[in-house]
Amino acid sequence: MTETETRGGWLSREELRDARERLPIVYVEAVPVRVDDRGVVTQIGLLLRASAEGTVDRELVSGRVLYHERIRDALLRHIESDLGPLAMPRIPVSPQPFTIAEYFPTPGVTPFHDPRQHAVALAFVVPVLGDCSPQQDALDLAWLTPDEAAALAAVGDMSGGHGVLLRQALAHVGHPV
Amino acid sequence: MTETETRGGWLSREELRDARERLPIVYVEAVPVRVDDRGVVTQIGLLLRASAEGTVDRELVSGRVLYHERIRDALLRHIESDLGPLAMPRIPVSPQPFTIAEYFPTPGVTPFHDPRQHAVALAFVVPVLGDCSPQQDALDLAWLTPDEAAALAAVGDMSGGHGVLLRQALAHVGHPV
Amino acid sequence: MTETETRGGWLSREELRDARERLPIVYVEAVPVRVDDRGVVTQIGLLLRASAEGTVDRELVSGRVLYHERIRDALLRHIESDLGPLAMPRIPVSPQPFTIAEYFPTPGVTPFHDPRQHAVALAFVVPVLGDCSPQQDALDLAWLTPDEAAALAAVGDMSGGHGVLLRQALAHVGHPV
Amino acid sequence: MTETETRGGWLSREELRDARERLPIVYVEAVPVRVDDRGVVTQIGLLLRASAEGTVDRELVSGRVLYHERIRDALLRHIESDLGPLAMPRIPVSPQPFTIAEYFPTPGVTPFHDPRQHAVALAFVVPVLGDCSPQQDALDLAWLTPDEAAALAAVGDMSGGHGVLLRQALAHVGHPV
Repeated sequence: MTETETRGGWLSREELRDARERLPIVYVEAVPVRVDDRGVVTQIGLLLRASAEGTVDRELVSGRVLYHERIRDALLRHIESDLGPLAMPRIPVSPQPFTIAEYFPTPGVTPFHDPRQHAVALAFVVPVLGDCSPQQDALDLAWLTPDEAAALAAVGDMSGGHGVLLRQALAHVGHPV
Repeated sequence: MTETETRGGWLSREELRDARERLPIVYVEAVPVRVDDRGVVTQIGLLLRASAEGTVDRELVSGRVLYHERIRDALLRHIESDLGPLAMPRIPVSPQPFTIAEYFPTPGVTPFHDPRQHAVALAFVVPVLGDCSPQQDALDLAWLTPDEAAALAAVGDMSGGHGVLLRQALAHVGHPV
Repeated sequence: MTETETRGGWLSREELRDARERLPIVYVEAVPVRVDDRGVVTQIGLLLRASAEGTVDRELVSGRVLYHERIRDALLRHIESDLGPLAMPRIPVSPQPFTIAEYFPTPGVTPFHDPRQHAVALAFVVPVLGDCSPQQDALDLAWLTPDEAAALAAVGDMSGGHGVLLRQALAHVGHPV
Repeated sequence: MTETETRGGWLSREELRDARERLPIVYVEAVPVRVDDRGVVTQIGLLLRASAEGTVDRELVSGRVLYHERIRDALLRHIESDLGPLAMPRIPVSPQPFTIAEYFPTPGVTPFHDPRQHAVALAFVVPVLGDCSPQQDALDLAWLTPDEAAALAAVGDMSGGHGVLLRQALAHVGHPV
């Protein structure tokens, strides 16, 4: 999960760090997809980001929900922040996420891990119709077929459990995993 | 549920009538909606149809799944057949329906009733982006706000349980019912 | 939502009040139900609580998720805390909630309102099999039929939007609302 | 999918064969699981059946919905028919399946294949609390851990796509696949 959004948030860096040691933090996560006319997922978008360790991470769209921000507004904000203002995401009509990913600071409690915090992430598959270009600190945006994405996610190359979440998303849209 | 689609199906009228007395029939139902950029439902589309009894019924999009037809293809076909070829529906990415409506030929078994058959209907909320115009035997297509639709559906004016299904759809998208 | 659970939490009362003015707080909400052998909901459990204003509120089970606590553990804890240690709840196998209720401190942003905080509540329908008895500050636990519960919820008597959530739960289990 | 249930159905063998060449047939499928107090899946039940080709197939619970039968009644009937009358299944409270598996007579249209028919299967994860013993033509009932089941399902040893469905069920309950 990227941290840049907190700069525009309601907490100073210190206060947020403090809260993160005390409270679960609400996140949204989006699996950006391209679909055909019949709603079949044809491609999955993955962000490539340089990690602190110098490796390249493949990531989903992810970020914090701010105080007094609606889930759907947070989804829209993070998708546009990561994929650009022309991405034209189709935000889901229902607030029902396909799953809840629970990121724990302690590895092994769940398949999801975030050393910085306990995050409760509401996960959605979000079709994007427009032009996408990686923003901010992302190096690139790669579009993979569902089969390629399923294979990549299985290798365990995606940090923090994003590979697990990606495969759960593929299962949810009916793709074999 | 309209019957016109069976003319293009794989069974003669007699054979279909026969099967309907013996087997549950697979249906899809779509609640057509207009949404804003954040996925909030702003309008619900209802078809106005003259019933056999001379009254005007308000209906959702509904129809049979044909042999060897995928659910998403049936959804697309019935939406275009009812709302016109320019409706531009966003067929859901996941095959998970928001509910299953079980129409029984005997009233009172479930909230759903169809005197002609036992139908198992997979129900989806489907945003439509394009121009919609009522097709075939529909008199008109009315766009209502969620509040108007909820009120109309509560009156019990919609035949066969479509009012119940409409209100379940509104609950699913987070609207108070 | 009751506040008693915070006494055993990880924050002092002052710290929690502080966080509540800055961050959305993660909640779980459970609609406790009795079911028959076929999974049909036969009764819904509502807590009766004396409000600060001296009226009696009807409430669902609801409470905060603690730091480093799993969603399913929070559900179990709050149900046992409200309905007693013999309630024997069937915690859902899937982390997918039937909806997300967004409680805002400002009325009217969503159908849900909590003057104390911005809460993001993951909502589940939870069958309870054992003996239930109201705990703590609850005056009583009332079991209503789905029809009675739907009627009560419609009157708008349940505080903060619990009536809306109850009706969304009934819609989710296939009951007409 | 086993066929024995059709003997007690409303169609003769010939009539059912006939309908199967013309209409999609409604099925229910259940992934039987053992859960702990917190709803975590600890074991998955798989039926071992001798196939016509002399091999042993691992299968989920699966069967046809009869005319005038409710989905939840069909689920209960097939689970008791396959796992015995003491299985004590917790039939889900909501009619919303976790997915729809579309079995086509032509391989490759979807991940699911049934040479006999086009079946539309509503899939549910169903905890069973009681004693289970394989019935009818099943040789055995094996209880696997989620990890064992995920591994077995990945090998492609389960016929007709039941391996895909099993992994989709595991993803739905939050297990890595």
